[in-house]
Amino acid sequence: MSTFTVKAFAAESTTADLKEMNIERRDTTPNDVEIDILYCGVCHSDLHTARNDWGGTMYPAVPGHEIVGRITKVGSDVSKFKVGDLAGVGCIVDSCGHCDSCKQDLEQYCLNGFTGTYNGKDKHLGGHTFGGYSQKVVVDADHVLKVPENLDLAAVAPLLCAGITTWSPLKHWNVGPGSKVAVVGLGGLGHMAIKLAKGLGAEVTLFSRTPGKTDDAKQLGADHVVISTDDTQMDSVKGKFDVIIDTVPYVHDVNPYVTTLNISGTLVLVGYLGGLEPILNTVPMILGRKSVAGSVIGGIAETQEMLDFCGEHNIVSEIEMINMQDINEAYERMLKSDVRYRFVIDMKSL
Amino acid sequence: MSTFTVKAFAAESTTADLKEMNIERRDTTPNDVEIDILYCGVCHSDLHTARNDWGGTMYPAVPGHEIVGRITKVGSDVSKFKVGDLAGVGCIVDSCGHCDSCKQDLEQYCLNGFTGTYNGKDKHLGGHTFGGYSQKVVVDADHVLKVPENLDLAAVAPLLCAGITTWSPLKHWNVGPGSKVAVVGLGGLGHMAIKLAKGLGAEVTLFSRTPGKTDDAKQLGADHVVISTDDTQMDSVKGKFDVIIDTVPYVHDVNPYVTTLNISGTLVLVGYLGGLEPILNTVPMILGRKSVAGSVIGGIAETQEMLDFCGEHNIVSEIEMINMQDINEAYERMLKSDVRYRFVIDMKSL
Repeated sequence: MSTFTVKAFAAESTTADLKEMNIERRDTTPNDVEIDILYCGVCHSDLHTARNDWGGTMYPAVPGHEIVGRITKVGSDVSKFKVGDLAGVGCIVDSCGHCDSCKQDLEQYCLNGFTGTYNGKDKHLGGHTFGGYSQKVVVDADHVLKVPENLDLAAVAPLLCAGITTWSPLKHWNVGPGSKVAVVGLGGLGHMAIKLAKGLGAEVTLFSRTPGKTDDAKQLGADHVVISTDDTQMDSVKGKFDVIIDTVPYVHDVNPYVTTLNISGTLVLVGYLGGLEPILNTVPMILGRKSVAGSVIGGIAETQEMLDFCGEHNIVSEIEMINMQDINEAYERMLKSDVRYRFVIDMKSL
Repeated sequence: MSTFTVKAFAAESTTADLKEMNIERRDTTPNDVEIDILYCGVCHSDLHTARNDWGGTMYPAVPGHEIVGRITKVGSDVSKFKVGDLAGVGCIVDSCGHCDSCKQDLEQYCLNGFTGTYNGKDKHLGGHTFGGYSQKVVVDADHVLKVPENLDLAAVAPLLCAGITTWSPLKHWNVGPGSKVAVVGLGGLGHMAIKLAKGLGAEVTLFSRTPGKTDDAKQLGADHVVISTDDTQMDSVKGKFDVIIDTVPYVHDVNPYVTTLNISGTLVLVGYLGGLEPILNTVPMILGRKSVAGSVIGGIAETQEMLDFCGEHNIVSEIEMINMQDINEAYERMLKSDVRYRFVIDMKSL
């Protein structure tokens, strides 16, 4: 299969800083589009993959799955896009297309495993996929999103992961006008959860451990902020929420949040992969028909729905723009939660 | 308030056997019906309350919340029943009627606390309520069920708790034709879960720790039995079930069952109140949008719906009839799971 060379930023080992190198992209097949990458958001998963925190990283690792760009080539069978169109690529660049999940537009739960935008198995070239920290990407058109022209394109990039990760559970658990939604944690995911839940018409509360984030949360659209370390404030929201989006990425006690769910309410974990410690108490769950659930990113159709919604409601991420060369420093700042609320790489800098 | 005396069986302390004593029932108020109790099922909660296993038992304790009888008096404002009608009373004899839960016919989640059929706060006489191990009971007519005339009345009694406890989550999580349902545990609750799920049109699998229950489960309507200690059998049902009704009443590892849920599936705990140990792993929950939830009994309207359904589909509990005087021995046998599948007291024996 013929290829072409583009510049990218990659980690060559678990401990190496990311640095510039060349990678190969396939020439567009009949179903592909080629995208000139304008902006790429920086997700915590990028860092975890670069450093092999979850195991299984294949090197060189080129992270990046919050990609916004312009189409520079379209395959002969592609009717959905034309050269010059804006395009988005999220976490999924391929899926089997025929399993029960794919048939329901739930490619994120593809039973045969979706192909991740990076560190996935490259079906075309062999080896593994390379993400958006690069000049161009070639993607199957069915896995490429249309991007509304009216939005700040750099600030659209994080919608492709942080946005859809919170949108999907909000929609699946039927959030709409009148819903009472709480968000745990105010980072890349949390700030999008607030904006999207508010956009859907919900009354939105942020749970925060410290009062320092109150003003920010309200500017983002939160109606209320509850300091989760204050028992009186926690008691005041007992039994209140229909849906809680828990974005905290490390182990934490979810029991206090479960008690703030309304009858039949659901707490959805989107940030923490691991064991629930301290142990989950079933008593309030049984006596209130409450659920603890999980959710990961979203399907292609649902991501398009979210982008269209954001276009209509003028919703984008809050970002701090960086150059490609600043990525290693940005990772260090992310580890200290020193970012409001998402780094986005200006790919012109590469 | 005027009262009358009836015979009952009661525990007078944590360690005492149940024995015959007299209790007072209120005379029927305009909204009440008086019921001559024909049969009363024996629930694990009866034993736990008699022995104060959960704390909070008020003595003397008269258990029993699976009551079937005939109406012997109706209050002047009651139009729903007439003397001679069959009647059922489950776990709830009163609720506030005006909270968000009650307004949605979810009296089991009454935000002001429903009045339990026994060991509840008696709003009429003061003190605490006495359950169905007695000759008669007087209950607010809005909390009394109509019982289909075509069923074996003794075998209807357990529907009032074991039946509705499994019916309510089956309905809430939309089980119907084509659903794949699993049941964990084959006791009073589990055998009803199999019958009701099958009645609703689901394909039903029993998880059992030992092969000994396979024939019984299939006779009750289970399509499959999976031995949960056999890794090969467990692997064969990975990702299969839409809903799992987990009836196990003691602490146990739910993680192996979560992996058998389909995408977007829900495991509902109905038997175990306490901490989930070993700790719950969020990874399969997040990567498959799976939920762990709880559910308790059901509302009055939903209980009526279930009884009507059972009348139409000829569904009753499997029972072993005992005399009132055998109750202490029956409790000992229940502790050894030596009952298929529910004891029912023939109240003529009192």
